[in-house]
Amino acid sequence: MIKEYIKENEGRILEELFSLIRIPSVSAQPEKHGKDMLRCAERWKELLLMAGVDKAEIMPTEGNPVVYGEKIVDTAAKTILIYGHYDVMPAEPFDLWKSEPFEPIVRNGHIWARGADDDKGQSFIQAKAFEYVVKNNLLKHNIKFILEGEEEIGSPSLSNFCTKHKELLKSDIILVSDTSMLSADLPSLTTGLRGLAYWQIEVTGPNHDLHSGHFGGAVANPIYELCKMITNSLDADGKITFPGFYNDVEDIPEEERKMVAQIPFNEEKYKQALDVEELFGEKGYSTIERNGFRPSFDVCGIWGGYQGEGSKTVIPSKAYAKISCRLVPHQDHEKIGQLVVDYFQKIAPKSVKVNIQSLHGGQGYVCPIDLPAYKAAERGFEAAFGKRPLAVRRGGSIPIISTFEKILGVKTILMGFGLESNAIHSPNENMPLEIFWKGIEAVINFHAEFDKV
Amino acid sequence: MIKEYIKENEGRILEELFSLIRIPSVSAQPEKHGKDMLRCAERWKELLLMAGVDKAEIMPTEGNPVVYGEKIVDTAAKTILIYGHYDVMPAEPFDLWKSEPFEPIVRNGHIWARGADDDKGQSFIQAKAFEYVVKNNLLKHNIKFILEGEEEIGSPSLSNFCTKHKELLKSDIILVSDTSMLSADLPSLTTGLRGLAYWQIEVTGPNHDLHSGHFGGAVANPIYELCKMITNSLDADGKITFPGFYNDVEDIPEEERKMVAQIPFNEEKYKQALDVEELFGEKGYSTIERNGFRPSFDVCGIWGGYQGEGSKTVIPSKAYAKISCRLVPHQDHEKIGQLVVDYFQKIAPKSVKVNIQSLHGGQGYVCPIDLPAYKAAERGFEAAFGKRPLAVRRGGSIPIISTFEKILGVKTILMGFGLESNAIHSPNENMPLEIFWKGIEAVINFHAEFDKV
Repeated sequence: MIKEYIKENEGRILEELFSLIRIPSVSAQPEKHGKDMLRCAERWKELLLMAGVDKAEIMPTEGNPVVYGEKIVDTAAKTILIYGHYDVMPAEPFDLWKSEPFEPIVRNGHIWARGADDDKGQSFIQAKAFEYVVKNNLLKHNIKFILEGEEEIGSPSLSNFCTKHKELLKSDIILVSDTSMLSADLPSLTTGLRGLAYWQIEVTGPNHDLHSGHFGGAVANPIYELCKMITNSLDADGKITFPGFYNDVEDIPEEERKMVAQIPFNEEKYKQALDVEELFGEKGYSTIERNGFRPSFDVCGIWGGYQGEGSKTVIPSKAYAKISCRLVPHQDHEKIGQLVVDYFQKIAPKSVKVNIQSLHGGQGYVCPIDLPAYKAAERGFEAAFGKRPLAVRRGGSIPIISTFEKILGVKTILMGFGLESNAIHSPNENMPLEIFWKGIEAVINFHAEFDKV
Repeated sequence: MIKEYIKENEGRILEELFSLIRIPSVSAQPEKHGKDMLRCAERWKELLLMAGVDKAEIMPTEGNPVVYGEKIVDTAAKTILIYGHYDVMPAEPFDLWKSEPFEPIVRNGHIWARGADDDKGQSFIQAKAFEYVVKNNLLKHNIKFILEGEEEIGSPSLSNFCTKHKELLKSDIILVSDTSMLSADLPSLTTGLRGLAYWQIEVTGPNHDLHSGHFGGAVANPIYELCKMITNSLDADGKITFPGFYNDVEDIPEEERKMVAQIPFNEEKYKQALDVEELFGEKGYSTIERNGFRPSFDVCGIWGGYQGEGSKTVIPSKAYAKISCRLVPHQDHEKIGQLVVDYFQKIAPKSVKVNIQSLHGGQGYVCPIDLPAYKAAERGFEAAFGKRPLAVRRGGSIPIISTFEKILGVKTILMGFGLESNAIHSPNENMPLEIFWKGIEAVINFHAEFDKV
């Protein structure tokens, strides 16, 4: 019956999703895409109403608006709050896309576009599962939707919004589709997320660009000094060197390490897929531990001096980098953010000026696997994918999840349907249609199971 | 008499110079400015004919053409070959210019434009001094002009051109205005130049950009690995670490170190002008030694990952840098070029792929101060500036000077009129008019003195 419904409505559902994707709602580029944020919120409001909510509205925040919708079937029944985000990552570099990032197309059984997975595609799975249970009179609990427009920039306005609308958002459990599974054949549920801290560094040497012949050897080169500070952020064992950084890190319990070791992982295939000869990470941990259970340090961007064709012999005045750390429970992103700012200012050599700014951050999260709603999610997955999903901690961050817990006092179930090959945050983001339809089926089954537990 | 001539012709001379400057002959950007190179060469040909050469022509090379002109007054007399270059550095970053880089204007007694000094302004000093001696029947030796269009990209075609036209370029001494003086009050002649080697490095990590949450900690970050290789290129004492790099470096003779110590140098003013709190360089050497007598290592540009507004949590696939070394006699730029390529390929960690390319280079040069033509230059300067110029080695590179010595067997006198504040290779390049006119006077006097020595 679910499969028939999907078959009958396939074209309409995809066209609805595409209408969302076509709006380039890039939250990191407000000058370029500020108006697209509101357009995208308005489109979501229409789509929620079409899916069956009783009411929907666009609610202001200090930043991009939130789309809220609800269907209350019984004030005495339990309430599920479904969270998603309508903003997307920048699509740059554009020239690496095989088709236009904001013109979705279906090719080889996949939807190709920015947001096809993260998070327009995944949120839409929730909306269409909801539509099915409403239209078939199967809904026995209340549903609230909240879609925000600032997830990719660290959700700066959402915690104030939650505090202000605590009553409106009152719920028993939160449901989110914004994570990924181990593979298409190996469904999994995410039970842990890493936190995030992100900084931009500006290093100023001389007050203007200098001729490297006349000044080379006599003044500090700001790019060099930046490279040196970045290099010294990790030691030879791949450990982060910021003093105090590991103070609140909980080491992996031996029991969990044993569980992690059971997750099928083929290092050769992983390396082949990335086309790297060797992996690199913190000494003493496996790859899955490194990207899920341990904090990490990355340079996300760097620039300075001459980047054009040919050779320009210059000592630039300025150099910049964007660096970030993934954090684990119980590291506090604000504490780490400040710790790194203080540290860089302290180690800055006198030959340059260092300005470091904390850009955004978020806390990590852990979901207990004995939660009844978690069990419902497990069964929902099993019904759609034919296998009981593994419980795994993942390396990504959804800062708002820990904020929900703190402000609303509600736990979140992470029912994500992404795949590593979906290339979120990268050129050629995509979503396999098969997973998209199975996802809808899994969430429909979750709603049925939720009423039983 | 010279001053009167200048006064009468001031407007015409500047307008002629401006007509050259307005042509954006940026050799490093052939796709954008390829046609401007030929236009600039043609304009120089017209201007040489107007200045009084018997004949002038545009001669092909493997790259941008050379402008050649000559006035032969007596085949038995000595011949001076005047060299200059009509190409200029890129003007980026455009937004830091106070007026358009290719629309010269006079403001506060300076000409402001890309090429106002390097080398259109300085070459034009030679052309106008020549015009004066021709028009006043004072020329007793032969003059040949050669203006190339590839100096700023390392003169890749000029050595073949010299080999091919050795007879045409036959001369007793070469005269070049493309260097700078210690200050407007402290005229100096450059007796040494550093060589140059320049590389571009490409570091490839994973085959596509990755989400730093899902992969952070598990794979090598190509920006980080690039920063690390750059950092390790210098040791804690500011010495370059490439094995074998110093093998051919001649240490500064004690006698020359004593001369260098006599050059007035105010470190406080130098730091103030650059707005840096501390200088940085090789341990055991003074600033003037560091930027004139010792080799140096610089990062001229770096880029990779996300460089836009806000934060994008990405592990980029690629990172790039442009690095260069200034070389001293007797370091061979080809040997050093290859040595560094081999070294980087050797130290590349297996977790990334490193591709390094040698972009261009040039040898250093030393001019003996007992050369008769050097004495004539000294007196020419003294007549115009009222002070005997100091002999100094400078840090810049004019690769072709050592090529002239090697192929044509002729020494070069570096009669440069630049000032540090002229900001060559930087935004707001300029030339003080007072120096421009004094330069013409100095070269006219050189021609008279040359016939005496």
